[in-house]
Amino acid sequence: MTSIDLNADLGEGFGRWRLTDDERLLSVVTSANVACGFHAGDAATMRRVCELAAERGVRIGAQVSYRDLAGFGRRAMDVPPEELTAEVAYQIGALEVFARAAGTRVSYVKPHGALYNRVVHDEEQAGAVVDGVLLADATLPVLGLPGSRLLELAGKAGLSAVEEAFADRAYTEAGTLVPRGEDGSVVTDPEAVVARSVSLARHGTVTAHSGSRIEVRARSLCLHGDTPGAVELARRVRERLQESGVRVEAFV
Amino acid sequence: MTSIDLNADLGEGFGRWRLTDDERLLSVVTSANVACGFHAGDAATMRRVCELAAERGVRIGAQVSYRDLAGFGRRAMDVPPEELTAEVAYQIGALEVFARAAGTRVSYVKPHGALYNRVVHDEEQAGAVVDGVLLADATLPVLGLPGSRLLELAGKAGLSAVEEAFADRAYTEAGTLVPRGEDGSVVTDPEAVVARSVSLARHGTVTAHSGSRIEVRARSLCLHGDTPGAVELARRVRERLQESGVRVEAFV
Amino acid sequence: MTSIDLNADLGEGFGRWRLTDDERLLSVVTSANVACGFHAGDAATMRRVCELAAERGVRIGAQVSYRDLAGFGRRAMDVPPEELTAEVAYQIGALEVFARAAGTRVSYVKPHGALYNRVVHDEEQAGAVVDGVLLADATLPVLGLPGSRLLELAGKAGLSAVEEAFADRAYTEAGTLVPRGEDGSVVTDPEAVVARSVSLARHGTVTAHSGSRIEVRARSLCLHGDTPGAVELARRVRERLQESGVRVEAFV
Amino acid sequence: MTSIDLNADLGEGFGRWRLTDDERLLSVVTSANVACGFHAGDAATMRRVCELAAERGVRIGAQVSYRDLAGFGRRAMDVPPEELTAEVAYQIGALEVFARAAGTRVSYVKPHGALYNRVVHDEEQAGAVVDGVLLADATLPVLGLPGSRLLELAGKAGLSAVEEAFADRAYTEAGTLVPRGEDGSVVTDPEAVVARSVSLARHGTVTAHSGSRIEVRARSLCLHGDTPGAVELARRVRERLQESGVRVEAFV
Repeated sequence: MTSIDLNADLGEGFGRWRLTDDERLLSVVTSANVACGFHAGDAATMRRVCELAAERGVRIGAQVSYRDLAGFGRRAMDVPPEELTAEVAYQIGALEVFARAAGTRVSYVKPHGALYNRVVHDEEQAGAVVDGVLLADATLPVLGLPGSRLLELAGKAGLSAVEEAFADRAYTEAGTLVPRGEDGSVVTDPEAVVARSVSLARHGTVTAHSGSRIEVRARSLCLHGDTPGAVELARRVRERLQESGVRVEAFV
Repeated sequence: MTSIDLNADLGEGFGRWRLTDDERLLSVVTSANVACGFHAGDAATMRRVCELAAERGVRIGAQVSYRDLAGFGRRAMDVPPEELTAEVAYQIGALEVFARAAGTRVSYVKPHGALYNRVVHDEEQAGAVVDGVLLADATLPVLGLPGSRLLELAGKAGLSAVEEAFADRAYTEAGTLVPRGEDGSVVTDPEAVVARSVSLARHGTVTAHSGSRIEVRARSLCLHGDTPGAVELARRVRERLQESGVRVEAFV
Repeated sequence: MTSIDLNADLGEGFGRWRLTDDERLLSVVTSANVACGFHAGDAATMRRVCELAAERGVRIGAQVSYRDLAGFGRRAMDVPPEELTAEVAYQIGALEVFARAAGTRVSYVKPHGALYNRVVHDEEQAGAVVDGVLLADATLPVLGLPGSRLLELAGKAGLSAVEEAFADRAYTEAGTLVPRGEDGSVVTDPEAVVARSVSLARHGTVTAHSGSRIEVRARSLCLHGDTPGAVELARRVRERLQESGVRVEAFV
Repeated sequence: MTSIDLNADLGEGFGRWRLTDDERLLSVVTSANVACGFHAGDAATMRRVCELAAERGVRIGAQVSYRDLAGFGRRAMDVPPEELTAEVAYQIGALEVFARAAGTRVSYVKPHGALYNRVVHDEEQAGAVVDGVLLADATLPVLGLPGSRLLELAGKAGLSAVEEAFADRAYTEAGTLVPRGEDGSVVTDPEAVVARSVSLARHGTVTAHSGSRIEVRARSLCLHGDTPGAVELARRVRERLQESGVRVEAFV
């Protein structure tokens, strides 16, 4: 029997502001990428999300980011590597306190937004993120894009490198994502997203933009939850996966 | 043989800005109150200070603060208790990651600035700080003012409550500090500060503002280090304590 | 014919986060209290709200706050008066640039949240806010609570002091607000809010908590807009005022 | 008689932290690039620097930056143009309030740090900065690097584009700066800096890295003031310029 992890971003409010429907998402996903205060996520929210995740057996991941509340971590920054390393470790440590208080642990690390995109290609920043994880806890897996420098360097450093796929994004024949902004880069038909999720989980394949079938090996599917419709879609993905005989469970 | 701890605030720069002479202070004190990013202390500075402290066997304490970089944590804030609790735990967790990476641990917690003053009398905030420490690590001692609500509630909660004294501050006959701003509230003569330090450490007494001798029991003396002269004075205090047969060592 | 101003808080998002339904509120109110970046309100949002307000002839007010994004300006802070004065002026100046670019001007100043409440009684901070307004533009009216130190000191300083009333808050016989948290402090029945609005605008009276009719003189009614229902209610208040022969127009 | 402007960065502290010796620098320069709160510069400091500058007849410029206190504005950021435009205008407006209160006006705009470097080549961000200046005040000159996209686009937009030179930086034969980090990129000999200043001001020439004499036309020299020695050097530059018959005066 095949298994797949479902991950999504949670706790992405800040103070008075809310963004993600954390309660409902936690009934769908198996891994929660919890914002750690740098792009979103105040301390009280982090605590609450960790408590809810622990109650439901959802794994807690540190969703580390550039320090950029105004830009929600979506603006790439030339952070010197030693600063980035320390900032990554800082965020993991801050989240760990709430995970432990809830009776569990931070189980993995996933970069957010512009940092996620940057460490696909940027060797220096990818290395800095890996160093930050090593500094915090050398047993933590890193979740990221297949083929990214981040996962490559994480693996070389002895960290577990976990690949994720996106059922709602178009893939090139080479197995990379069609860049946002290009025609058809996002799959908007819910039924197509569900079908692609099942195909990715059961067969490790998906139909590329060109129409041909390609291999995309991933232990986790990234779902989105910042709109009510997205949560509903995530729930359908989970249900269809289970109906198809896929076991939905955390990768760690 | 009597012993005393010497504590001081360290790592109180932020990014480009420096304030405390961390290198030199670490050769004087036995306990370093390290800023955790809320009133001062960027992640890279926290890492560096923890490494230096660990090398020299200086204990690392989490100097927790209100979230107020612009005011350096010196502006009292009506933070709701559940937020304050989470913010205290967040800061301890963030520092813990660097203490562990340096081969040691966060060994105690001390509130900074306006929070330090507030929890002398404010039961709600004192309780919130204690809850934050309990959330992070229920084995951590709390360092504060004798007679404060903070230490009282810490003790009731089963935490170790460690009292500190100030050799450069005038005391009332009741053993409380003469409020800043009042005549003679600060002892400026270096030789007097040194002599008071020795008296506090050896006999647990100090000359009050009124001229009478009072008891002030403290396991730690708080030194200041944000001016070059202050570091020099701190060094003289340490030397004179040792010459007087006092063992200078961390309280934990 | 009687006239009344309707004011509401706008632009209270920050970066990725949205809170107020600015578009719809701007079709209801005559005065927009625009967040200036200290408790909410990034620069791009401030620009957009000013443009929309100018298009619709809605007056722009600077909604000045403590520097506290994490607490949404709802945590009282002991900001030294010279700092508070400068922070108030800073916020007014920043908003003025967008008001001018939109072809209009900042027309008044209203403190937000904890600062609004603090300057009801705190003479020092009330004076600091007045000084900030004087520093920025001594022709700006100040909008606040009748009987507050803020309005008293604003008047003494030669500023126009504009009083506002709250149709959805209970009043004591003395004409002050029943503190939030007390039973019945908030009027939740929409029809009652509408009726009270009309009474306040037409007769300058409202039924106090005790049941007796009291005088509450105000040139502006404060409406809320941070929930969809609130905007709908605000619209009904406006319509009923107009049907009752009250002219709804800005106080400046 | 030739004239030259001397500009330097001022007000680059934040809250408790100080960096620039504003008092002494203001007795040397004719144009003060005042930090506006995004990389440094709290409101009270901005006010104080504007008052001192106005007293001494020093022009006030808005030193606009990325929003990055932790990185002191030295980390390049991919800020979307519409956000950058609004952030630039916000900073100018905030400073303008203090300049006006001091009886003068903001007289020019100069980008800081990573933004300064980015707009040398980045057309999109250079255009966004120009748009921000136009939004705030279309009569403001822009101070920057000769040959930069910023000055090119500023000129095209009808803004006055003012070029500056660096007496303590090596130039290539093409008249561009030798990148920091390369051998000899910084001129450290004080006497050489003084001589180069005079040559730049009197003849519009300087000896390039290669040894040949090149033309560098500039209406302003950028001096540094973040170390005590730097202020002393700045003073010598000013004195030598005056002794050489150069009039030291603001470019506006």
